[in-house]
Amino acid sequence: MVFEDSVGLVKEELDAVEAALRKNFMSDVVMIPEISRYLSEGGGKRIRPLLLLTASKLCGYHNGDRPINISCVVEFIHSATLLHDDVVDEAHIRRGKASSNVKWGNEASVLVGDYLFSKSFQLVAQDNDFRILATISEASRRLIEGEVLQLTQRRSIFTTEKEYFDMVRRKTAALIASSCQAGAIIGKAPEETESALFRYGDQIGMAFQLIDDLLDYISEEEKLGKPARNDLREGHITLPLIRLLARAGEKEKKMIKGIVSSDEGIMDGAAKVLDLMEKYAVVEYTIEKAREFVREGKKEIAGLPPSIYLDSLFAIADYVVEKRVESCLKGASL
Amino acid sequence: MVFEDSVGLVKEELDAVEAALRKNFMSDVVMIPEISRYLSEGGGKRIRPLLLLTASKLCGYHNGDRPINISCVVEFIHSATLLHDDVVDEAHIRRGKASSNVKWGNEASVLVGDYLFSKSFQLVAQDNDFRILATISEASRRLIEGEVLQLTQRRSIFTTEKEYFDMVRRKTAALIASSCQAGAIIGKAPEETESALFRYGDQIGMAFQLIDDLLDYISEEEKLGKPARNDLREGHITLPLIRLLARAGEKEKKMIKGIVSSDEGIMDGAAKVLDLMEKYAVVEYTIEKAREFVREGKKEIAGLPPSIYLDSLFAIADYVVEKRVESCLKGASL
Repeated sequence: MVFEDSVGLVKEELDAVEAALRKNFMSDVVMIPEISRYLSEGGGKRIRPLLLLTASKLCGYHNGDRPINISCVVEFIHSATLLHDDVVDEAHIRRGKASSNVKWGNEASVLVGDYLFSKSFQLVAQDNDFRILATISEASRRLIEGEVLQLTQRRSIFTTEKEYFDMVRRKTAALIASSCQAGAIIGKAPEETESALFRYGDQIGMAFQLIDDLLDYISEEEKLGKPARNDLREGHITLPLIRLLARAGEKEKKMIKGIVSSDEGIMDGAAKVLDLMEKYAVVEYTIEKAREFVREGKKEIAGLPPSIYLDSLFAIADYVVEKRVESCLKGASL
Repeated sequence: MVFEDSVGLVKEELDAVEAALRKNFMSDVVMIPEISRYLSEGGGKRIRPLLLLTASKLCGYHNGDRPINISCVVEFIHSATLLHDDVVDEAHIRRGKASSNVKWGNEASVLVGDYLFSKSFQLVAQDNDFRILATISEASRRLIEGEVLQLTQRRSIFTTEKEYFDMVRRKTAALIASSCQAGAIIGKAPEETESALFRYGDQIGMAFQLIDDLLDYISEEEKLGKPARNDLREGHITLPLIRLLARAGEKEKKMIKGIVSSDEGIMDGAAKVLDLMEKYAVVEYTIEKAREFVREGKKEIAGLPPSIYLDSLFAIADYVVEKRVESCLKGASL
């Protein structure tokens, strides 16, 4: 089974999620649906709904709207943080379009992010299951902690792999893990299954962010839908750079430090950093780390009863690293 | 009974709220407790916890922490919106201190606001009562809608009283009404009592914001704890200005329009606006409108059984308009 099959397996539900997203950002306050629609049309892979829907079916839930509603919740929380991220990063492009802070201003991005956040909790309230509220609100809190950690680690070249992994675990893996767990809760899975799915999501989420951070270095703007080498520009210290700093000589380190601490004339610097990354096989290292997370993630669910939905989760796990890297490196030297 | 007695009546619980606020913004992510503490020390009147605690006692709840925990929730939501407001307004002073966006940057203000918001929902999850989640999440959504309305009405001199009241009802009254309702829910009050307390809070909340908006014109920085005439500078069209525009002659209107649409050299303009407000008795008009809301608010709870807590709610209602205006106008001509 490949990723496209995973999507096809819950195609109807994913379409229902799109419709529910549109319905739920309706408001009599005109600016809100306008910005939300803009965000929503930007698309994105809907990886969180895909995992949630698949997990709920794996656990035997087939008839009902709960996974669709909770998919809206996680997607709204994710969108809210993207909006706020763009304000924090002063981004100009997101998913191939002008980012909303540029189009409507920082004020609107902050407030519409808040709106999506509060709306998501209203949807949880309507779902009426405290275990869902518990996992989603815990994931949200950890996600924000991850964002704050990212801010405090900015331009700090002393950031360790361990600190980076801790940040990623909160910023990205928490909500993905919680999406998987929510599917299990809705499917009334036994506790071991629920926690296995949570841990699977956690590992997949780690791999997902590692590849995101790698693609920021090795991909081009038209493929990313956002400016490449953005992390270097913004001073986000991610795994490729951490690895490079660990391997580089003193002189090289000094040069990298200079590039990271400045936020101007970065493009010359980026080329130098990419050369050094090739020299020290940083891309291979990052991919291997991501693969480790995927392997661990698969192990977490390996003991579950065989089913087409389990196969689907394996296919999604492979997609997260292999397919994304492949599509990016097609025709390239690696 | 006067306002100080109202505070005294739940003094122990208010102290417990302060302690719980401090406890709940603890995080292993260093920046979070730092900013939260800074915010928390800024104080504020804790009017929402005061109302929630009083309402819960009125409804017979005396032993237990639930009103204290839910007071943290509403206070965190309120603080989160203050943080985000400061980013939206590019504020420099809040509660007599440098606002957090100046001290830590917009990024940190956005993220710590998000943190408080997500933490508040985690506290609701721990409280484990879906009726509380429903009222709080509905209030949050309406609050943000109010903020968005405020943004879209900015510098629009065609804003009507009706539009302004609608904005205030969402931005301020919703969370105050919900605080009163939450107290009633915790106290397991009958439905009529619960909805009477909600409507009382709604009216009091309206009056509260009207006086806030009036004080912005007639008070001085040292009394407000933030710059006076800020709304004029930021282009927020509030009741005093709406009333003035309704009464002013064509020539005066044109001048006011010029002042509102510019965001520079506002201080000369402010003096002119204040003169016109005196000419057209705008202060008296605004106070009278606020008093109407207070009268309606008192009517909503007039049928409840007499008790010291009911007296307290009446005293709080009086404080919201009379005491705040009085303390501000002491020694002034009005």
